[in-house]
Amino acid sequence: MKPLSATEIVAGIEAGNLTAEAVVRACLDRVAEREPVVKAWAHLDPGLAIAQARAADGIGGGVLRGVPIGVKDIIDTYDMPTGHNSPIFAGKSTFGDAACVALCRTANAVIMGKTVTTEFANRHPGATTNPHDPAHTPGGSSSGSAAAVADGHVPLAFGTQTGGSVIRPAAYCGVVGYKPTFGDFSRVGIKMQCHSLDTLGLMARTLDDIALFRGAMLKLPPVAIDRGIPRPRIGLCRTPVWDDASDETRALIEATATTLADKGAAVIDVAFTPDFADILDDHGAIMAWECTRNYADERLRHPDLVSRELWEASLTRGLDVPLERYAAAQRKATKFRAHVDSLFDKVDALLCPSAPGEAPAGIEFTGDPRFNSIWTLAGTPCVTLPAGTGAKGLPLGIQLVGLRHADDRLLSTAAWVAAHLN
Amino acid sequence: MKPLSATEIVAGIEAGNLTAEAVVRACLDRVAEREPVVKAWAHLDPGLAIAQARAADGIGGGVLRGVPIGVKDIIDTYDMPTGHNSPIFAGKSTFGDAACVALCRTANAVIMGKTVTTEFANRHPGATTNPHDPAHTPGGSSSGSAAAVADGHVPLAFGTQTGGSVIRPAAYCGVVGYKPTFGDFSRVGIKMQCHSLDTLGLMARTLDDIALFRGAMLKLPPVAIDRGIPRPRIGLCRTPVWDDASDETRALIEATATTLADKGAAVIDVAFTPDFADILDDHGAIMAWECTRNYADERLRHPDLVSRELWEASLTRGLDVPLERYAAAQRKATKFRAHVDSLFDKVDALLCPSAPGEAPAGIEFTGDPRFNSIWTLAGTPCVTLPAGTGAKGLPLGIQLVGLRHADDRLLSTAAWVAAHLN
Repeated sequence: MKPLSATEIVAGIEAGNLTAEAVVRACLDRVAEREPVVKAWAHLDPGLAIAQARAADGIGGGVLRGVPIGVKDIIDTYDMPTGHNSPIFAGKSTFGDAACVALCRTANAVIMGKTVTTEFANRHPGATTNPHDPAHTPGGSSSGSAAAVADGHVPLAFGTQTGGSVIRPAAYCGVVGYKPTFGDFSRVGIKMQCHSLDTLGLMARTLDDIALFRGAMLKLPPVAIDRGIPRPRIGLCRTPVWDDASDETRALIEATATTLADKGAAVIDVAFTPDFADILDDHGAIMAWECTRNYADERLRHPDLVSRELWEASLTRGLDVPLERYAAAQRKATKFRAHVDSLFDKVDALLCPSAPGEAPAGIEFTGDPRFNSIWTLAGTPCVTLPAGTGAKGLPLGIQLVGLRHADDRLLSTAAWVAAHLN
Repeated sequence: MKPLSATEIVAGIEAGNLTAEAVVRACLDRVAEREPVVKAWAHLDPGLAIAQARAADGIGGGVLRGVPIGVKDIIDTYDMPTGHNSPIFAGKSTFGDAACVALCRTANAVIMGKTVTTEFANRHPGATTNPHDPAHTPGGSSSGSAAAVADGHVPLAFGTQTGGSVIRPAAYCGVVGYKPTFGDFSRVGIKMQCHSLDTLGLMARTLDDIALFRGAMLKLPPVAIDRGIPRPRIGLCRTPVWDDASDETRALIEATATTLADKGAAVIDVAFTPDFADILDDHGAIMAWECTRNYADERLRHPDLVSRELWEASLTRGLDVPLERYAAAQRKATKFRAHVDSLFDKVDALLCPSAPGEAPAGIEFTGDPRFNSIWTLAGTPCVTLPAGTGAKGLPLGIQLVGLRHADDRLLSTAAWVAAHLN
């Protein structure tokens, strides 16, 4: 049986055809069946999930009533440990909930458990496998969230993105990923990696679920996706790293542009000015600078308990970035955001790859974030939509990027795109 | 005896004339003498402070060797509770250190204790009094840090500023306060109020100490203040809220401008364009929107344990701010930052009030942040310098504001100003 979407769960409970407890038990059955292979969960206590579901049934109401949600294991929960995939934090619980978790509970959702993250949402991988083929990575850093949603364990999950940690794993696992405009979603209670970049994002199997989930995170009445928009204007944006995409991915994006034009979209080519050809270097300088300061406690007190990747990439690399380079990167980022904003004078959304290609083989390398880091720095809302499979039979995604503070428009445009690709 | 500055402590220990233990014991004596009146400390364990000092003496070296530091009680410390001046958190300890605390320890400083904050660095006051007159507020939200530095308990302390919580209490207590360029200092382990505004700041009794402390926070070799700069260009910036300053404060700022011009500075009048006359409304919209989402856990699980002020100002007010208003305020803030940056084409620093006047009577109201919130939104570095006393005999301050990412230049300009006012 196809797993229910969050929208279907809310409607079913509202209509009296479902209970939160039944929903959670079905999800737990799916987890029990699949977890030995997928390994999406860092912590999942079935008893606690069922107790929450019963409470949700008793309370009634709420925009996420009875919906089980996976929480990336760098996000605090008062009633479950937050392990960060690090021996430093293994088994440790925080005193409070992250704001995003509290907003879920306020909406009467069920916090199903904690999903596997790479170490501190950085590079060192967890044990999660791609649910489409366990010999491949699910992507990262939000590995468990992407895998759990893709594999029907939960309809919704949180990810976070500093480089490409929401959009890329969502694409690799074949689900819908959404990164909002920078600043819209609270980051309280989420371990900070880079304050200039870290963005809470959402994963689901449908765009309607993304819109529902987003409303709860904004603490606003959900805005249903407008499916009556006129034919959208799409900018095919190859980005400065187009050549790093696989042939298959480049063909996918260009074929998608052709199809959308055939279906009535106004498609034009859009490119950054040459000033921003090296914008990924500025992302890297900001990330390196901030990481090295932000991990000061781990570096001082627990140097033996961090991975080699974290030590080299994040705990020390920023010591080689002069303050002037950091400041220059921040100034460049400001100009880049203004430039990207200006692209939307002519288009409603940009179309580009979600990742260089299919998920890499093995689980040691969670893939290359370069098609995502650009937009994390830009602060733009982004959506990845599933777009078939590649040569290895693994999911491919297409990424749509919107104007900052126009997330509703992006979701409506994405819905038009999804409807006209299928 | 005049209490030692951090710079003097480091030099004295380096020369073998002092030990960290002797320094800490002298500070503890001062605390014991004055704490019953000043009430600057939320947590201070003399035994732990002395143990750290002995360890610092044993380790040797470090840019803050043996310097006792006060830590605002919204900043995590693994070995002391972090109470946030809230019954929700009273006596609770976190697992790790905030990055800024870890950077202090890395520099071989002594974490003296936790200083009193208003509830969650918001409005509801603590018990701290102004060390110059206990019938008056020390300002807030970094109340204990300002009072402890002013009163000689410690040479350095951390504050944080979302509206005016570093510069205002520093001015009220007659110390030097510094808020860096937004983004330069790590915020890991500091309870977030508004991710777009919260800024870690520093308090000391001298500008040299600020420069020393700043180097440790940037994890860079300290940059000594350049005292050989040419005569600076100063912009007298009355700001859109000039009329809200007391007669005394307006006279102080104008007299300061005259004095600096007499001493050779190039002083010109600088004003915002009319577009930004209401910029404080945009600060307010951003703060209200973000606070209400960020305090979701407190609102859901502990509504009976928050103050009336927090409930009304921060836990609920943002529900009346539409998303479009928040987005408009963010767009306006981006334009405002560019406008403020442009003012520095003609000046090295802006001169304006640090606060509307002397510290208000009583400790219930920590004073008005309007002369600070402007610059918190602008993301500019700011310094407040002590500038004599007012009609009630309490300290007055002058505020100098610099170009973003040019903090060194601001500190050098501030040193020129300080040297030429005395």
